[in-house]
Amino acid sequence: MSVTAPKGFVAAGLACGIKASGAPDLALLATDDAVAVPAAGVFTSNLAAAAPVSVSRAHLAATGGLASAVIISSGNANAATGERGAADAGRMCGLVGEGLAVDGAQVLICQTGLIGIPLPMTPIVAGIPRLVAARAGGRQAAVEAATAIMTTDVVRKEALVEGPGFTVGAMAKGAAMLAPNMATMLAILTTDARCEPAALRLALTRAVDASFNRLTVDGCTSTNDTVFVLASGRAAAPTDTGALTDALTEACDALAGLMAADAEGGSRVVHVVVNGARSDDEAHRAARKVADSNLVKCSLNGEDPYWGRVVSELGSAGVGFDINTVDVAYGATVVCRGGVAADHDDKAVRAHLALPNVEIRCELGLGQGRAAVLTVDLGHGYIDENRTTS
Amino acid sequence: MSVTAPKGFVAAGLACGIKASGAPDLALLATDDAVAVPAAGVFTSNLAAAAPVSVSRAHLAATGGLASAVIISSGNANAATGERGAADAGRMCGLVGEGLAVDGAQVLICQTGLIGIPLPMTPIVAGIPRLVAARAGGRQAAVEAATAIMTTDVVRKEALVEGPGFTVGAMAKGAAMLAPNMATMLAILTTDARCEPAALRLALTRAVDASFNRLTVDGCTSTNDTVFVLASGRAAAPTDTGALTDALTEACDALAGLMAADAEGGSRVVHVVVNGARSDDEAHRAARKVADSNLVKCSLNGEDPYWGRVVSELGSAGVGFDINTVDVAYGATVVCRGGVAADHDDKAVRAHLALPNVEIRCELGLGQGRAAVLTVDLGHGYIDENRTTS
Repeated sequence: MSVTAPKGFVAAGLACGIKASGAPDLALLATDDAVAVPAAGVFTSNLAAAAPVSVSRAHLAATGGLASAVIISSGNANAATGERGAADAGRMCGLVGEGLAVDGAQVLICQTGLIGIPLPMTPIVAGIPRLVAARAGGRQAAVEAATAIMTTDVVRKEALVEGPGFTVGAMAKGAAMLAPNMATMLAILTTDARCEPAALRLALTRAVDASFNRLTVDGCTSTNDTVFVLASGRAAAPTDTGALTDALTEACDALAGLMAADAEGGSRVVHVVVNGARSDDEAHRAARKVADSNLVKCSLNGEDPYWGRVVSELGSAGVGFDINTVDVAYGATVVCRGGVAADHDDKAVRAHLALPNVEIRCELGLGQGRAAVLTVDLGHGYIDENRTTS
Repeated sequence: MSVTAPKGFVAAGLACGIKASGAPDLALLATDDAVAVPAAGVFTSNLAAAAPVSVSRAHLAATGGLASAVIISSGNANAATGERGAADAGRMCGLVGEGLAVDGAQVLICQTGLIGIPLPMTPIVAGIPRLVAARAGGRQAAVEAATAIMTTDVVRKEALVEGPGFTVGAMAKGAAMLAPNMATMLAILTTDARCEPAALRLALTRAVDASFNRLTVDGCTSTNDTVFVLASGRAAAPTDTGALTDALTEACDALAGLMAADAEGGSRVVHVVVNGARSDDEAHRAARKVADSNLVKCSLNGEDPYWGRVVSELGSAGVGFDINTVDVAYGATVVCRGGVAADHDDKAVRAHLALPNVEIRCELGLGQGRAAVLTVDLGHGYIDENRTTS
């Protein structure tokens, strides 16, 4: 259940002093022999991408998709920090490289926290040698790393998936921009699968598209979102690419579920399913429109079965839509059929809406397109967590 | 200050029993001689448009842009009500037409309220003859009409604009989908300007684009949004089209400001201004992305000057963006310059954020495109108003 479970990885986590609270804020994931292995990253689409995103992209390009380690810090996003931010992120990679006796370009970096504040480099520079020295295999080191990347997360997020002949381990923090002051989702996956960088990159892209990209908390895209995978190649035999994609997807899916369950201000996890769209892409856009609707999310917070808002969002999603063929169900109970109210068991609906996992099923009746998106309701807690950063 | 101020109009408002509370829920606006005059409408882009939208569109098409009256009801949106809903809306127009001795196609209709519930036609059928009989010129009748279209509005919304040789009067309710259970914005404008239907339609479209379409409370597009204008032509001379557009825009702008100020859960009105975009359209999209951001709106609720979220939204707005040329200011105080934190007077920023009208000014530094969008902050009140419909 950790990033050190696949063969060939070590980890570490400690408090270096970025966070005023003194909580752990610096983590390392590395290959046990510091040799660079195939690595891939998927990054935020935000054009205000943070310095660690730019630096990691450059390092992966320079090595052709190889890495020895990932350094992760929490408490400061190193975003909107200009040239100084890029230099700071590069220096952190260089310091890790020195400790591991490898080139700094073989080190990747993720950061999460407040935007617009220069990094406090003094504690970081002092912390990195201690962090590198503390690296170890086994469960405890992985727990320390997974703890050090947490910000407002209540629950530590890890996953473990067994593929045919290989293992995938993972750790993550946050969910979209749900984590208020520390607004980011980060995930680091490890595997002992044997594969080329190009295949690893394709598998990761597909896994992220089928998991994290189906999760929305508030529709905000962070400046720092990053998912990395490193593949040590210690498995006995070459790895089937399809099986690797499946295992990465399963691990990412598990992490996405943990993020939704831990979303601040959310009192329940909501699965929005759209079937019968003209295409899978249209189904995804329709599901996301419903999932991102403040009005729908407020209704879910109040356990109120007001399906009119769901139909209204479907109708304004910019996809093919005919109200006369629309059905909406909460769980197994259809409340709207053919675009009008359907006779139904109100008690069953209210019982379903009181569950910790709620399902809104929409049938558009136009084609074979289908998609599911994960979200949470909108309650006072979200506002309370996000109204001030100090 | 009312729809009866321009020459040639009468109005009425009363309680017929749609609302369980007994509050006024039926309003009429008509020409004083029941003669059809040039009329135009702008409707929701939602594909789940309500029955009154479809019926009004059909009536305007049938008459070539003429109308004698508008009937407005509140408390039930007549949306997601299928063929029965369309028949009910058509019957309401027909009943008004009978009372005025004109064809039902000369009557337009707006409705607002809960989605998915069939209209209670018995009280409506009984109420319409009383409503038609009560129609009168003057201020009091206009106030009664403007009151009867309110739902969760706290403030009655009216506007009056004097153009060169003509007058524009207006009434409205709601704002986007801010009004929770009664989720809609409706506006009815009257003028004694002399113009053709086609010119009136163009002027209204431009006015709405420059006013209501620059207002966003929660990014939700209602099933019932409708703006109508009727032009009695009683002005002494033909009306200049440019002057008419300006006057309609001014009236719509005044109503949009009233809606933002009355937005539920909002404690302040927020003006998001974007300059220096590659085009006006990109400026508008960027401003809307900032204005619709739950994280930005939560910061504004907490009077927290966290500009990092503004930059993050600009970077994910899907428009041309270079963080190195971005400035952000709260009011007159620049807090981010060239994409990094700017030294500034923190007290001045906090004093500005405590005002009832807050301004976020963004400079993208890429071109001449500019736009402004009006919104509100996100507080507990919005959730409380929207979490249950019963």
